[in-house]
Amino acid sequence: MMTNINIEQANQKAIDEFMNARPILVGVEKAVDVIPGMHKNLYLHAGPPCSWERMSGPVKGGMIGAIIFEGRAKNAEEAESILSSGKIEFAPCNDYDASGPMAGIISPSMMVFVVEDKNSGYKTFSGMNEGRGKVLRMGAYSEEVIERMLWLNNVLAPTVDAALKAMNGLDIRTLLAKALHMGDDGHNRLDAASLLFTNLLAPHIIRTAKNSTDAADVVKFLGENALAVLNPVMAGCKTMANAAQNIEGSTIVTLMARNGTDWGIKVSGMGNQWFTAPAPVVKALYFPGFTEKDACLDIGDSVIMETVGIGGFAMATAPALVTFIGGTPRDAINTTLDMYEITYGEHKNFTIPFLDFRGTPTGIDIRKVIEKGITPRVNTGVAHKDPGIGQVGAGVVSAPMKLFEDALVAFAEKYDI
Amino acid sequence: MMTNINIEQANQKAIDEFMNARPILVGVEKAVDVIPGMHKNLYLHAGPPCSWERMSGPVKGGMIGAIIFEGRAKNAEEAESILSSGKIEFAPCNDYDASGPMAGIISPSMMVFVVEDKNSGYKTFSGMNEGRGKVLRMGAYSEEVIERMLWLNNVLAPTVDAALKAMNGLDIRTLLAKALHMGDDGHNRLDAASLLFTNLLAPHIIRTAKNSTDAADVVKFLGENALAVLNPVMAGCKTMANAAQNIEGSTIVTLMARNGTDWGIKVSGMGNQWFTAPAPVVKALYFPGFTEKDACLDIGDSVIMETVGIGGFAMATAPALVTFIGGTPRDAINTTLDMYEITYGEHKNFTIPFLDFRGTPTGIDIRKVIEKGITPRVNTGVAHKDPGIGQVGAGVVSAPMKLFEDALVAFAEKYDI
Repeated sequence: MMTNINIEQANQKAIDEFMNARPILVGVEKAVDVIPGMHKNLYLHAGPPCSWERMSGPVKGGMIGAIIFEGRAKNAEEAESILSSGKIEFAPCNDYDASGPMAGIISPSMMVFVVEDKNSGYKTFSGMNEGRGKVLRMGAYSEEVIERMLWLNNVLAPTVDAALKAMNGLDIRTLLAKALHMGDDGHNRLDAASLLFTNLLAPHIIRTAKNSTDAADVVKFLGENALAVLNPVMAGCKTMANAAQNIEGSTIVTLMARNGTDWGIKVSGMGNQWFTAPAPVVKALYFPGFTEKDACLDIGDSVIMETVGIGGFAMATAPALVTFIGGTPRDAINTTLDMYEITYGEHKNFTIPFLDFRGTPTGIDIRKVIEKGITPRVNTGVAHKDPGIGQVGAGVVSAPMKLFEDALVAFAEKYDI
Repeated sequence: MMTNINIEQANQKAIDEFMNARPILVGVEKAVDVIPGMHKNLYLHAGPPCSWERMSGPVKGGMIGAIIFEGRAKNAEEAESILSSGKIEFAPCNDYDASGPMAGIISPSMMVFVVEDKNSGYKTFSGMNEGRGKVLRMGAYSEEVIERMLWLNNVLAPTVDAALKAMNGLDIRTLLAKALHMGDDGHNRLDAASLLFTNLLAPHIIRTAKNSTDAADVVKFLGENALAVLNPVMAGCKTMANAAQNIEGSTIVTLMARNGTDWGIKVSGMGNQWFTAPAPVVKALYFPGFTEKDACLDIGDSVIMETVGIGGFAMATAPALVTFIGGTPRDAINTTLDMYEITYGEHKNFTIPFLDFRGTPTGIDIRKVIEKGITPRVNTGVAHKDPGIGQVGAGVVSAPMKLFEDALVAFAEKYDI
């Protein structure tokens, strides 16, 4: 009985921490300079821990691209020989307070968005967003991919950093709250959030850029990239999730992440322990010329959005998203309604106009997942299974039940229930 | 029988013209240089024709501000004496291919947005948008109002004009179609459309502005103004409406407009004839400190949006709008569903995600209005009834039935039905 009461209190505290966190995007810095523990031979990736041998195609492709980007190899063969030599250390972004979309590669010289929690001062990180098409995060590493990464690092990053400093930071939670009233789910559809982001930055970019060519190029790139704000939003959601970590007795999920091989979750009351299961196939709409045969298994850290109550959980805000990921507007509403079944509370800052401004379902409770037999539903992009290709579609996927079963068994053991 | 068939064909042609019109925002020019028939003593206003004596407070206030803006008077007393002298000619914007929000004042020296129909080359016009608060279009004319008007004329207008020319025009229909999938109704809520507008312009503004201060100021003003694109959209909708004018035998409404004294409509098959009725009171949410006692009667040309199938007709796309105008998301959906009852067709370019991407109700048929006993529903701002004050609220209003009764009687007489 005593134990039960503590779980409820702990869970309420966990979702309060999600909701009270105040992520502010404060700048763009070099990963090795700003991520605690980062060093020249450490390469981060999405999802739970994974050896080179077990890595999915997109993560391998992203690693190859990163080694070339770092100037340590001229081509894929050279890169692979370094990557498989044992000289390079691989680790999850999430174990370094970072969050990376799809393959989620962060290498030491990459510039990363820095988000600071206004309450605690705690920092979280995410890389630059490359837009859609042939991109490193989908496992592509051709010359055009590396060239764009270099432009992002050398031009976009310092330009945006100067603007962010001039405007004294950008409030990610406020931006998301607005975007959810503008047809975004906050994960796969960030059209409105990216426009808001660009519009807030633009006057400061104009005033602080080295020259008007850089200013125009950066504003154009951000304005045309419907995912321009994806990475800052991921770092922002990581801030929220971090705030709810390590609450004794809480059954709330504080992390979900996949790497194209495994899914992993963490649970607040279970500290830093990963629970993992094989990554599932995504039910997707494929781009012309591709089918499910080409698809990598589920991949990416962007499921941090669903962890804190947006993305698939807020799909009722984003009926137009179905044109990209499949299904009908009714499915979108039903997805949100289902997620109320497995969450502990409703978000006080993120609301859904069409459900009479009801708060989004927030805080996945592993007890409810098991009890209801419903696992978290996620919107996601789909990468090609082979390195070097890129995105092939987008769709929806449900987390494997095994994650929650294992976590609940471990929880019961730890707390002697 | 023959007559009936012609009406159906004529009405189909009318809504096809609405939908096929392709308004492109091509530039910003001085009213007297670009509006055919404009001259130094002609002052345009919203709604149907109106003498100085019968003008509502906001139109009088806007006229006073315009005379001061033109440098023909130093204060309100001097302005009123000129305005009541008989030297100034007053006319509806709509009789000069223009469309003005609220009081809708266009004076000869004001810069106006120029929209060109890609199909016909026909041009339509609308003034600069001043943002929310104390503004000329709500009847305010204090020094800060005139100063902002001068900045809009001297800095914003040429800066945006240069950008529009560099980008070869901006497609209003495409912008609206996107915004309707981002929680805008296209009339009272233009948050997404204004962000899209600013984002499309910004890189070109940066490249073509006289200096980076102007560029930053203009991008900031547009980016912070949730109605930045209201006037270009009104001119765009006027283009669509004009395309459907004067179709022999059509019972489709091609114009609705109010001036705070009267409502007026025109009907395609009835040429240039105005049908008018007293303007109704708006059912509104009032700003703090104001009540219905302070409200001007219904006013403005922005009901051109509803005329072509957006605004109140597309409210099901904009559930978050109810926080501004009152009611519930369910009311918003019901408004759209009601409007299908009195319209001839469904828009092929403007669709509503939540109604399974159904086209918006398009083309008000005066026969259906009478038959169903339902008149067009409109989202609107509310101005103070006295000159010199400004906006006091926002809400919804239904057009007076008399307009449609008179129009149908006249139609039956003309066509001998």
